[in-house]
Amino acid sequence: MGALLQDDEEHPFLAINEEGRSPFVLICEHASCRLPRALGTLGLPAAELERHIAWDIGAEKVARLLSRLIDAPLALQRYSRLAYDCNRPPESADAMPEMSELTAIPGNRRLPEDQRLARIRDIYRPFHDGVSRLLDRRAAAGMRSLVVSIHSFTPVYKGKARSVELGILHDRDTALSAKLIKSFPNVDARLNEPYGPKDGVLHTLNLHGFARGLEHAMIEIRNDLVADGRGQDEWAQRLSVPLIQAAAK
Amino acid sequence: MGALLQDDEEHPFLAINEEGRSPFVLICEHASCRLPRALGTLGLPAAELERHIAWDIGAEKVARLLSRLIDAPLALQRYSRLAYDCNRPPESADAMPEMSELTAIPGNRRLPEDQRLARIRDIYRPFHDGVSRLLDRRAAAGMRSLVVSIHSFTPVYKGKARSVELGILHDRDTALSAKLIKSFPNVDARLNEPYGPKDGVLHTLNLHGFARGLEHAMIEIRNDLVADGRGQDEWAQRLSVPLIQAAAK
Repeated sequence: MGALLQDDEEHPFLAINEEGRSPFVLICEHASCRLPRALGTLGLPAAELERHIAWDIGAEKVARLLSRLIDAPLALQRYSRLAYDCNRPPESADAMPEMSELTAIPGNRRLPEDQRLARIRDIYRPFHDGVSRLLDRRAAAGMRSLVVSIHSFTPVYKGKARSVELGILHDRDTALSAKLIKSFPNVDARLNEPYGPKDGVLHTLNLHGFARGLEHAMIEIRNDLVADGRGQDEWAQRLSVPLIQAAAK
Repeated sequence: MGALLQDDEEHPFLAINEEGRSPFVLICEHASCRLPRALGTLGLPAAELERHIAWDIGAEKVARLLSRLIDAPLALQRYSRLAYDCNRPPESADAMPEMSELTAIPGNRRLPEDQRLARIRDIYRPFHDGVSRLLDRRAAAGMRSLVVSIHSFTPVYKGKARSVELGILHDRDTALSAKLIKSFPNVDARLNEPYGPKDGVLHTLNLHGFARGLEHAMIEIRNDLVADGRGQDEWAQRLSVPLIQAAAK
C-alpha cells in the first residue's frame, strides 16, 4: 500500500511552542478527531466520529492553554485514535481498534498487513519520531525534561457513570504523580483512575519518559469539565501551578 | 554543525537477515569500534580504540552466528560507543562519555551543544529508528517479537577480575531472563551481573521491549570467551537452544 496521507494533508506531529523554556514537555496523542482522507469515515456515522471514542474532547485546548501558561513545548497528534491510537504500540490490538467502547469500527475490521503497516508507518512512527527529536534537542542543550501527557475521559463509560474528575496516572515511576496528586484539594483527584498501567495506557510515557530516565505523569480530565472554553481555561489554570511546583527539586 | 557522517560512510543501522522468521529480534548496539571520520581518534592512541571501552569485543560475531542459527533478524550498530553509546539515552552522561573505565576521552570533553546534537541526530536516532521500523513491520505482519541484545564485558574492570561468564540482565520484566538463566548448567551464569538496571544498561530494552510490551533480555558474555572464532561459534551454539526453548509458550 502507498502513502496513507496525501501531500496536502497534515503531518501527524505538530509542535507548539517548540522552544518553550519550561522543564515540562506536554504531549496530546488524542488531540484530534480528523481522519486521513483515504480512510473515509471508517464506516461510521458522523456523530460517532465526534464522540470520545474518536478523540479526547477538550484535551487539545487545555494543553494549548497550559503550554502558554507555563511556556512548555506541546506535541500534538493530528489524527483520530480510530485511525491509529498513538498511545498504543503497534503490537496492541487497541492501536487500530475493531471495537471502541460499544461501537464496532467497520473500517478497522480484519485490516490486512499492508494497511496496518501504512497506519503505523504514516501516523504512529512520525508522531513519536517528532516527540523523540524534540526531546533529543533539549537533551543536547542540557535542558531538563519532564514528560506529561494530557488526556480527557468520558463521564459515562459502557453505561457506568464516573465521579472521578482528575486522574493522575503512573506506571513504575511514581515521583511526579505523588507530588501532583497532593495539589488538588478541592477536586476529586485519584491516582491511576479511571485507567491505570494495566490498561496499556502508559505507552507514550514508557517510551519517552521511563526509557529515557525522565520523570513523567499522565493527566486525565473528565471531559464534561473541559467541554467549553470556560472549563478549558479553568483546568489549564488549575494544572499550571501544581506542575510548576512539582518540577521544583 | 552539519552532518557528522559523510555520504560515503556507513549508516549507523545495519539489519542482517531482516526477514528472519524467528520470534527473536537480536540487537547489538556495541558491535563496532569504527569512529566517524569527522571525529578522528577522539584524541586517543590506536590501542585504546580497540579495547573494550570502544566496543563489545566478539559480540557482533556471536550475534551474526546466532542470527543464522535461529533465523533471527539482527540489528547492528556501526559506530563505536565512544562516539555515541546507543544503549544510553541522550540525557545520560554515559552517552558520550568523557571517561570510560580509567581512560579519559579527550574528544568527548565538554562537548558543545551542536556537537552533542550531531551525534544524537546522526548515530543514536537513526539506529533506534531502524530498530523501531523493523519491529513495526513485524507487528504489522502479526509476528511475535522477543527482543534480545547481545553484549560482551571485560574480564578485568578497574583492576578487578570477574569470574562470571554469562550475565542475563533484566529490569522490570523478568519472564524471559528467568527462563534463560536455568539453561546454562555448566556455565557461571548470573542474573543482573556484572551490570544491572541501576547501571542504566537497560535503555535499548526498555525502549523497544518494555514500552511495546515485548518480552526481552540482555545477554552479556565475558569477552575472553568470545575473542576468537572458536569461542564465538561455541557461544552462538550454546545460546541458540536455550533461546528457542525460552520462546516456546
